[in-house]
Amino acid sequence: MKKARKTVEELRLRATELTNLNNIIALLHWDQEVMMPPGATKDRASQFATLSTIIHKRITDPVLGDLLQLAAEHCGHLAGKDKALVRILSREHARNIRLPEKFVADFARLTSESLPAWVAARKQADFKVFLPYLEKIASMSRQKTDYLGYEDHPYDALLDLYEEGLTSISLTEIFTSLQPDLTWLLQEKRVASAADDPVFPFPPIAEKDQIAFSEKMLAEIGYDFTRGRQDASPHPFTTSIAHNDRRVTNRYSTDSLEFIFCALHEGGHALYEQGVDEDYAGTPLDEGVSLGIHESQSRLWENIIGRSRLFWIHYYPVLQQYVPDPFQDIKIDQFVRHINRIQPGFIRVEADEVSYNLHIIVRFELEKELMAGNIRVDELPSLWNEKYRNYLGLIVDSDAKGVLQDIHWAHGSFGYFPTYTIGNLAAAQIWQRYCLYDPEYRQTLQQGQLVKIRQWLTDNIYCHGAIYPPAELLQRVCGEPLNSGYFVDYLRNKPEFSP
Amino acid sequence: MKKARKTVEELRLRATELTNLNNIIALLHWDQEVMMPPGATKDRASQFATLSTIIHKRITDPVLGDLLQLAAEHCGHLAGKDKALVRILSREHARNIRLPEKFVADFARLTSESLPAWVAARKQADFKVFLPYLEKIASMSRQKTDYLGYEDHPYDALLDLYEEGLTSISLTEIFTSLQPDLTWLLQEKRVASAADDPVFPFPPIAEKDQIAFSEKMLAEIGYDFTRGRQDASPHPFTTSIAHNDRRVTNRYSTDSLEFIFCALHEGGHALYEQGVDEDYAGTPLDEGVSLGIHESQSRLWENIIGRSRLFWIHYYPVLQQYVPDPFQDIKIDQFVRHINRIQPGFIRVEADEVSYNLHIIVRFELEKELMAGNIRVDELPSLWNEKYRNYLGLIVDSDAKGVLQDIHWAHGSFGYFPTYTIGNLAAAQIWQRYCLYDPEYRQTLQQGQLVKIRQWLTDNIYCHGAIYPPAELLQRVCGEPLNSGYFVDYLRNKPEFSP
Repeated sequence: MKKARKTVEELRLRATELTNLNNIIALLHWDQEVMMPPGATKDRASQFATLSTIIHKRITDPVLGDLLQLAAEHCGHLAGKDKALVRILSREHARNIRLPEKFVADFARLTSESLPAWVAARKQADFKVFLPYLEKIASMSRQKTDYLGYEDHPYDALLDLYEEGLTSISLTEIFTSLQPDLTWLLQEKRVASAADDPVFPFPPIAEKDQIAFSEKMLAEIGYDFTRGRQDASPHPFTTSIAHNDRRVTNRYSTDSLEFIFCALHEGGHALYEQGVDEDYAGTPLDEGVSLGIHESQSRLWENIIGRSRLFWIHYYPVLQQYVPDPFQDIKIDQFVRHINRIQPGFIRVEADEVSYNLHIIVRFELEKELMAGNIRVDELPSLWNEKYRNYLGLIVDSDAKGVLQDIHWAHGSFGYFPTYTIGNLAAAQIWQRYCLYDPEYRQTLQQGQLVKIRQWLTDNIYCHGAIYPPAELLQRVCGEPLNSGYFVDYLRNKPEFSP
Repeated sequence: MKKARKTVEELRLRATELTNLNNIIALLHWDQEVMMPPGATKDRASQFATLSTIIHKRITDPVLGDLLQLAAEHCGHLAGKDKALVRILSREHARNIRLPEKFVADFARLTSESLPAWVAARKQADFKVFLPYLEKIASMSRQKTDYLGYEDHPYDALLDLYEEGLTSISLTEIFTSLQPDLTWLLQEKRVASAADDPVFPFPPIAEKDQIAFSEKMLAEIGYDFTRGRQDASPHPFTTSIAHNDRRVTNRYSTDSLEFIFCALHEGGHALYEQGVDEDYAGTPLDEGVSLGIHESQSRLWENIIGRSRLFWIHYYPVLQQYVPDPFQDIKIDQFVRHINRIQPGFIRVEADEVSYNLHIIVRFELEKELMAGNIRVDELPSLWNEKYRNYLGLIVDSDAKGVLQDIHWAHGSFGYFPTYTIGNLAAAQIWQRYCLYDPEYRQTLQQGQLVKIRQWLTDNIYCHGAIYPPAELLQRVCGEPLNSGYFVDYLRNKPEFSP
């Protein structure tokens, strides 16, 4: 027992060191996106290389492997927190020792060279420019699945990187029933939501008003500015630089309402991280457990809460006060109708709540077959376009608006996309659970009592950090596994879609 | 020879890693001062601890010691750059292995505990509150001199930390002749510069105007904003986050001209670092060689150039354009007289060019005797007050305005202060050299041809980074060692002091 305690103490020390180093990497990224002068790009890459090498050496250290094995043998006697620590570090250790150092370096070089090719291909709307790179990335990604290992399907090895335990089989089952439902709902709701109001587009919105209102929104949902900050960046994101330092970014364009929903979306991510139990600080438990559960929180605040009429009954006067121009002249009904318009489009990141997941299902089906070796990379554009015709009823006439639209494949991130939909589905399922807890939820929203919602989410999800695997967390919160029925019901019954 | 080449290659790799890690530490500091939310202070301390431990392990690595010894044996065959690399790494290695790890940790803990005591003592103007801490700091600093080693005087071990090769003997010689000259000049010039113009104090200056003009000043002296940025911080500083990322900060108070001279001061530091030869990037040569030489560049731009009437003949209309309120109503002669007013005061950081170094001489004399064990810590206030009466003609009636005014001792930084005066002396000496090179220097200034001055400084000082020790660099630039005569002549003849 004494040996077990010493082992755990040593593991905790190593976990703190790794957590600190990973947080410093996060700061380097945040700084690069938000602050760094443009001339320093190469220098920063060298700094990343130095830190990444140190982290890789530490996580693959055979001594760490021995400590983890020793701890696993005493797992029955460990506290829950230490058990989770062993589970997470073991996953990280195993994943890292399975990937040969040369492979990791080659893959990093390949994706870094692929990025400009993807940018050029998208600019020229010419898939051929990106094709040779994507072929290598897909081929190396298949190799990666072999290194990482899997039971049923090679794609599972990649899915598990982003969402522990997620499999092709379970996703196929969910998506196979979800796709026709969504395609059907899209037809129905796009007609119901009808054409947009002529007050849109509106005159330019002053940046200072956008900043003031987005800060107000963050404060209202409970984001703690003494433990975070909001800045501008070309691509909005949330990052954790420390337990008490969870930063968000936003994007301010004069002709878009993005600043509102970006604040709620990134704010949702940040609330999750700010809500993790202080006891987990300095360990790998001190973060959201998976990309899917994380996305459920951003989407819950952005869409389910943030696009509801009830929410705006309380907050529309605040918006009109902070951003009088143009909202003084727009009625709440016009506004709510506008932010809930259903209209299938080519671009995922601009998609409405109904069509969004169809974009993801297309990606999933293509990625799965690609990783199984059932389709070729050069077939992707035609397969893509066919699926968009079938699922969204759209004729894609340019690869720039089609298969080339997203950066993820150029980054080599196969397996990432499905977590967006996991997030949307889990958000509806969790919200349904919240409504059981708070039958007066309509009043709660209408009176802006967001603290009540945040507290329930904190107690049931945020505080746990990464201590439970994502599926176990969902089971605990909802009493059942992931179920897409709640999301379909939510879309079907959302009153804002049928005004 | 092949072995020597391999040794140097290995040293270069290790140097790059160390440089990257030190630059990351600089980013953590910059972020803490400029961006970090207040709640994250403890987390950041833990991140510093992790990185500092890694750096300490690497710099004290016995394998590095062996490599350095091997390289030193082949020093005759090394390129100048590699020779300097070996010299600097050897200094760092030796210094770090001489200080026991426990001592370093204890000293860090002591100074971190002393900081709040110093803050409280200064607030209450009560030296006794700080006394027990300062006694421990002084005692451990003396212990540090024993660990580090010295030839003549214990204080030399500390001076050398900030200014390679600087000794008590040489400083005593310089300061002994400088002090009476300064005390005499102070009497003479304070009468000549007379009372201040009634236009001062002026109405509040808008912060946005301060930012715009300070950025304009930085751009004019040649600061490259693609390789740096200016932000606000409570205590202005310059830091190097990478070869192409040298950041400055400024402080904007509505009732002070500090924003102008801060931009020129920090800009001078930053020009030095931005001017280092690209070939030295990723090595410890990629920085200014010492605190004294660094300060010579900040002071040259801030005082010798930035407080000259000739400079303002060109730039005063620019100031009036950027900051019309209040400068539209102030004449250039009033402005130049105001920024060159000679008036002894209690506070070092507010001191004019003549009295400034008297503050430093007081510190030097006290630190030297303290490290030699010739005076006790509890005698410091009375000794301080006595020297202020003799050198500056001031009766110090509160330790808050006296011995407690600066943070350096609470940090444990004995030996730091003299570099400020080294900087002032070297600035005048280097400027005199520049005037020999450019006999039309008056016209150069008056026409705002700052590029000419910056180019000469770059070619003669900046580009060399840390390749020459500070005394050798000065000898190369000026053809003689540090000579305080130029500074005394500069003060004596500066026309702005006798308007």
